[in-house]
Amino acid sequence: MSQSKYEYVRTYEESTDNVLLKDCYIVVRVDGHKFHKFSKCHDLFKPNDKRCLDLMNESAKHVMRAFFPNIVMAYGQSDEFSFIIRRVSDLYKRRQNKITSLIVSSFSSAFVFYWSQYFSNQPQNACHQSVPLQYPPAFDGRCILYPNSKVVMDYLRWLPLQYPPAFDGRCILYPNSKVVMDYLRWRQVDCHINNLYNTTFHALTGHYTKYVLNSTDNSYTFTPNWTQSAGADPPLPLTPREATERLSKTISSDKHEILFTEYGINYNNELQQFKKGSVIVLDISQQLMQSIVSKNKKKKKSLDVKGDEEDIDINSYLSVSYIDVIKEEFWSQNQSLLT
Amino acid sequence: MSQSKYEYVRTYEESTDNVLLKDCYIVVRVDGHKFHKFSKCHDLFKPNDKRCLDLMNESAKHVMRAFFPNIVMAYGQSDEFSFIIRRVSDLYKRRQNKITSLIVSSFSSAFVFYWSQYFSNQPQNACHQSVPLQYPPAFDGRCILYPNSKVVMDYLRWLPLQYPPAFDGRCILYPNSKVVMDYLRWRQVDCHINNLYNTTFHALTGHYTKYVLNSTDNSYTFTPNWTQSAGADPPLPLTPREATERLSKTISSDKHEILFTEYGINYNNELQQFKKGSVIVLDISQQLMQSIVSKNKKKKKSLDVKGDEEDIDINSYLSVSYIDVIKEEFWSQNQSLLT
Amino acid sequence: MSQSKYEYVRTYEESTDNVLLKDCYIVVRVDGHKFHKFSKCHDLFKPNDKRCLDLMNESAKHVMRAFFPNIVMAYGQSDEFSFIIRRVSDLYKRRQNKITSLIVSSFSSAFVFYWSQYFSNQPQNACHQSVPLQYPPAFDGRCILYPNSKVVMDYLRWLPLQYPPAFDGRCILYPNSKVVMDYLRWRQVDCHINNLYNTTFHALTGHYTKYVLNSTDNSYTFTPNWTQSAGADPPLPLTPREATERLSKTISSDKHEILFTEYGINYNNELQQFKKGSVIVLDISQQLMQSIVSKNKKKKKSLDVKGDEEDIDINSYLSVSYIDVIKEEFWSQNQSLLT
Amino acid sequence: MSQSKYEYVRTYEESTDNVLLKDCYIVVRVDGHKFHKFSKCHDLFKPNDKRCLDLMNESAKHVMRAFFPNIVMAYGQSDEFSFIIRRVSDLYKRRQNKITSLIVSSFSSAFVFYWSQYFSNQPQNACHQSVPLQYPPAFDGRCILYPNSKVVMDYLRWLPLQYPPAFDGRCILYPNSKVVMDYLRWRQVDCHINNLYNTTFHALTGHYTKYVLNSTDNSYTFTPNWTQSAGADPPLPLTPREATERLSKTISSDKHEILFTEYGINYNNELQQFKKGSVIVLDISQQLMQSIVSKNKKKKKSLDVKGDEEDIDINSYLSVSYIDVIKEEFWSQNQSLLT
Repeated sequence: MSQSKYEYVRTYEESTDNVLLKDCYIVVRVDGHKFHKFSKCHDLFKPNDKRCLDLMNESAKHVMRAFFPNIVMAYGQSDEFSFIIRRVSDLYKRRQNKITSLIVSSFSSAFVFYWSQYFSNQPQNACHQSVPLQYPPAFDGRCILYPNSKVVMDYLRWLPLQYPPAFDGRCILYPNSKVVMDYLRWRQVDCHINNLYNTTFHALTGHYTKYVLNSTDNSYTFTPNWTQSAGADPPLPLTPREATERLSKTISSDKHEILFTEYGINYNNELQQFKKGSVIVLDISQQLMQSIVSKNKKKKKSLDVKGDEEDIDINSYLSVSYIDVIKEEFWSQNQSLLT
Repeated sequence: MSQSKYEYVRTYEESTDNVLLKDCYIVVRVDGHKFHKFSKCHDLFKPNDKRCLDLMNESAKHVMRAFFPNIVMAYGQSDEFSFIIRRVSDLYKRRQNKITSLIVSSFSSAFVFYWSQYFSNQPQNACHQSVPLQYPPAFDGRCILYPNSKVVMDYLRWLPLQYPPAFDGRCILYPNSKVVMDYLRWRQVDCHINNLYNTTFHALTGHYTKYVLNSTDNSYTFTPNWTQSAGADPPLPLTPREATERLSKTISSDKHEILFTEYGINYNNELQQFKKGSVIVLDISQQLMQSIVSKNKKKKKSLDVKGDEEDIDINSYLSVSYIDVIKEEFWSQNQSLLT
Repeated sequence: MSQSKYEYVRTYEESTDNVLLKDCYIVVRVDGHKFHKFSKCHDLFKPNDKRCLDLMNESAKHVMRAFFPNIVMAYGQSDEFSFIIRRVSDLYKRRQNKITSLIVSSFSSAFVFYWSQYFSNQPQNACHQSVPLQYPPAFDGRCILYPNSKVVMDYLRWLPLQYPPAFDGRCILYPNSKVVMDYLRWRQVDCHINNLYNTTFHALTGHYTKYVLNSTDNSYTFTPNWTQSAGADPPLPLTPREATERLSKTISSDKHEILFTEYGINYNNELQQFKKGSVIVLDISQQLMQSIVSKNKKKKKSLDVKGDEEDIDINSYLSVSYIDVIKEEFWSQNQSLLT
Repeated sequence: MSQSKYEYVRTYEESTDNVLLKDCYIVVRVDGHKFHKFSKCHDLFKPNDKRCLDLMNESAKHVMRAFFPNIVMAYGQSDEFSFIIRRVSDLYKRRQNKITSLIVSSFSSAFVFYWSQYFSNQPQNACHQSVPLQYPPAFDGRCILYPNSKVVMDYLRWLPLQYPPAFDGRCILYPNSKVVMDYLRWRQVDCHINNLYNTTFHALTGHYTKYVLNSTDNSYTFTPNWTQSAGADPPLPLTPREATERLSKTISSDKHEILFTEYGINYNNELQQFKKGSVIVLDISQQLMQSIVSKNKKKKKSLDVKGDEEDIDINSYLSVSYIDVIKEEFWSQNQSLLT
C-alpha cells in the first residue's frame, strides 16, 4: 500500500525492539496477575484447585501447539508457567517483543477459551458424593467468598468466569543447558516449598481441600475441607494471622508433623501434581524436528494454530507428567531435550 | 519463603528487563496474529465486520479500565489497537516486559471473554430482515467459508469462537506530543487507505457487505453482499487475482469512481467507524488524575481490574468516537490529553 | 572481500547494538577512572590543578571538533566532562556503542596527546616567582607524593605522564530540553558542593593551593599552599580523618567561615573555573548548522578530525566560559542551543 | 555529599545501562577510526608497518594488564584488536557501557602514550642501511604523502604523532566456547584474505615494503619498496584503479603467482605477524586465577593499572605469538583458555 508522510514514526520502533542473543535458551514465564484476588473471587479450592491447574496445563499445551516445534518443554505450578524455547530456534528472528507477547497472549486467550471445559460440566467422578443442596450460589458479579460448606455439586458444574484474567510475561536468556536445568529446579523447589507451606496453612485455617486420586481410572474424589479427616475431632481453625505466626517458627519436618498429627494428613499422599508441578515435554525425534524446521523455513512461518500442521497430530507428541526435574535422573532420560 | 541454591538463575533476568525511558509517551500496539485466517475461519463480513470491531473496542476499554488512569487514549482499526500511556506514568516502574505483556494479555483475555456478547444474542436491529432459512450452519471445528447468501439471522445470533486467537504486542517510545500525534495520524491514514482499498476489492470480488446506520437510535441494518444495491445489475464478480490486478493501477479517486458507478456505493456514506477507526479517550480532569495517581502511589498498585476503583465508574470517563485525528481540530479540542 | 564460513558470528552483534531513541538529547559523560590515584601519582595541586582542568577543556574541545557539529555543548568539572549531542542528530545512526566509544576514545587520546602542552613548557606567567630550588623531583616511574613545598618552577615545566590514564563513558537520553538543563544544573550544583568541601578540606589538611587570576592579561599566579596567606599564623594541619570528622558537622556557611576566619581565604575569590566548572558552547547559527549537516549527509560522514572541514575554523565557534547554568539567564541567552 | 533537587535526572540512566548476559564470553573489539587517513597522514609503510602493529600489541598488553585477570586472550590485526573476557567474569557487574568504554579508553590512551617508543629512537637494526639524505621531512601539521624513497633513517627515528587518533569499540556476547573460537577464526581468515590482497595491491602500485626478520636476534631489516627485489626489472607501477581492476579477477593462487613471478616476492616468506595477526594469551593457572579473583572480590576492585598488583609481574603471564587459531591444534593446546 502507499505510504504517508507520517510513516517516519516507525523508525522509533528500533530502540525498543530487542533481539535475543542467539545460541541461548529462551525462557518465557507467564505469571497470573493478581491471582490472589482472582482465586478469591472464583472461590477456588485451597491449597490447590485441580480444575485450575488442569486448565493451566491445557493452556500451556495450546501454546506449545501454537509455537510447535519451538517450545521443547514447559513447567507449571500455581499460577505460573515457564516455556523453554530451543537454543537454536529462530522464532520471529528472536525478537523479544514478538516472542514474549505472543506466548502470553496465546496463553491468556486459551485460559479463557478453555475455562468452561474445566469449570463447568465437570465429569461425575470429580464431584463429592454427599453435598448439601443450598445452591446455586448467586453470581452477580460481586466477588464473594462462599463458606466452603456451600460448595455444591451443581456449583462445581457451572462456574462462569467472572472477568478477563491477565498474565504478565517475562523473557529470560540462559546460555547453556546447565543453567536451564537449574532454572527448572529453582521453580520446582519453589513449588515444593510453597505447597508444603500452603497445605499446612490452609489446614490450620480450616480451608484445606483434600484430593484423592484413583490411579486405576485417573478419576479423583475431593473433600472441600478437613472435616472429613478420619474420625478426628479437628482443632479449631486459626485466623490467617495466627496461622502465619505459628508457621513462622517451623521448618519442613514441623509442617509434616502438624499435618499428620493434628489433621491426619500424610503430605506424602498429596497429589504429585500439587507437590511437583506439571512438566510438559515435546517428545519428538531430532529427525522429525529437523524436517519440520526446514519445512517451516520454506513456508516462512513460525507460529501455527490448530489445523496448520494438518499432517501432524501435535498433541500426540505432548506428554504431561508430575515428575522430579531436580535429580539427574530426569535429565539423563531426556538428554535430547536441551540440545 | 526460604531460598534455594538455584535462586542464582534469577540474576539472568536483568539482561532482558528493559526499563523504558522516562518522560516519553509509551505506545503499545496489539495486532491480531494471523487474522486473515481467523477472519476466514469465522466467516467475518467483508470488508468490515462491525461485531468484531465493536468487540475490539470493548476489549480496548477493558484494558483502559484495567490500567486506569495510565492510558489516556487508544486508537483501533482493523485487527489492531494502540494504547497511549501518559508521558509521566510510572506504571510498573516502566518495565517493558511487564507493560507490554500485561496489556496484550488483558486485551487477548477480554477479546475471548466478551466474544459471545458480540457474536451471539445479537440485538434484533443488527440483523437483516429477510434471510433465507437454511440454518444453522454446522460448526464442527473445521474452518469453512460459507457462501455469503447463507448468512442467516440465527447464525448471527450464535457464532462460537473456534479457537483461542492471539495478538502480538510491541512497545514504542515517543519523546514528545508532536510525534505521538503523528503516530496516530499514521495509523489513521493507514486505516483510510486500507479501507478504501478493501471496500473496492470486496465489491469487485462480490463479497462487499453494506452497513447502514440509523443515526436516530444507533441501530443498523446490513446487507451481506452487494446484490441489494439499488436495482443495478451488478458486474460479475472478479477473482481475487483479477481484482488485485485491476486495483494496482488505480488511485484514490478511481476507487471512489468504481464503487459509485459500478456498484452504486457512495464511499462517503460508509460508516465513520470503518473509515476513521475508533478513538477512545480517557476524559478526566487533571485534578482527578492527580488525586488517583497519588492515591494509587500510596497503595502501591497500578493495574486494576473491575471493582478496584469502587468509588469511580471508570466507564463514564471513556468515550468512543470515530473522529478525525489528522487535522489540528481534534488536538486543539483535547489539549490536556498529551500533557 | 570474500567471506568465510565463520562470518555467521557477526549476527551475534545485533543483540548488543542498541539504537538510541530518536528525538532525544544524547548526553555522553566521560569520567576519570581511578583519578584519585592518578592525581596522587602526578602530585596534582589541591583542591584544583588548573593545568589539568585546562587539559580537560582542551580534550573536550578536540572532541567537539571531531564530532562537529553534532555536539552543541559540553560541561566539565573535576575529572569529568559531559557532552550534549543535538536532539535531531543522526550521528552513526544513533548507535550507542559507536557514539559512546568514539567520544570516550577521542577524549582519552586527546588527553594524552595534549598532556605535554599543559604539563611542560608552561608559560612563565603560570609559575610562582620565588620557589625553593631542590629540583628536579626524580620521576622514575614509581608513584610518589612529593611534599608540596618541593613543587618548583622547573618541575612545573616538565611533568611527564606516568602511565596511560583511562576514562569510562556512559550514555544517557533526555527527551526534552528541560531535563537536559536540569542535568547540567545537577552537575554544576555537584561541582559547587564538592569544590567548597574540597577547598575547606585541603585548607584544613594544609594542602590548599591558591590561584590568583590577573584578569587583565589572563595570567595567573599560584601559591602551592596556604602558608602564603596574609600574615596569619596558620593552624596546625589536620589529618585527613580529623578534617573529614570536622567537616561532617558543617553546612555551607560554616565552610565559608572556616576558610575566611582560620585561613584568610575568601571563597568568593576562588577562580570561577573552580567554582562553576567549564561550559563550552558551539556558537553557530542554525543556518550554518543546517548547511553543514546537509553537506555531511551527502558525504556520508559524521566524525571529523583536524583538517576535514578545511573551509571552517571550528575553534572559532567554540567558546569556553565559567558561567552559571543553573539560573534561567544562561538559557534565555542561549535559546538556540537546545532546539 | 548532599544531594540537589536536580538529582532526579540520574534515574534516566537506567534505560541505557545494559547488563551483559551472564555466563557468556564478552568480546570487545576496538577498531581504528578513519585509519586510512591516519596511515596516509603518518606515511605508514604498505602493506604493513611493523612499528604500528607492535604499538597495537603494546597497547593491547596494557589493556590486558589493566583488566587483569579478566581478559584471557586478545587478537589483533591491521588497525583492530579483539579482547576476550572470561565467561564468568563479573567485571563492573557486566555493565556494557563501563566495560566497552574503559577498554576502548585504555587502548586509545596507551596507543598515544607508547607511540614515541615505537616511532622514535628506533633501534639501529630496524633501519635500512643505505638511505638518501633528503631529510628531515617537514611535518607541519598538514597530511602529506611522502614519496617512499624519501623515507630516511632519521625520519624513522622521529615521527611525531600528528593528531589524537580515535578507536571505536563494540561489545559482543558469545554463549559458548565454540562460537568464540569461530569468532577468532573469522578475524584470522579476514587477516589472511586482506593481507594477501594488500600485499599484491601494493606490489602492483609500487608501494610494497619488504620486511626480513633475522630470527636469531629478532632484529629485522626492511626495504621501503620493491625496487630492491633481486635483480629484477620491476614492472611499471599501476595506478590504484588499475591495480583494483586487475585484482578483481584473481583468486588466492593468482595473487601468489603475481607476487612471485612479477615481483620476486614469496608470500610464504612474509612475516607471520603480517599473515596471521597477533595472538596474546594470558597464561596463568586456574589456581592463580581463582586466588586473584577472590582477592579482588574482597578488595572490590576490578580494573587495575600499573602497580596495583605489586606482587605479580603481569607481563610475565602475557605471551604474544603469531600463530594459527583456525586449526584445532591451538585450541587443544590451550584448553584452559575458554573455560
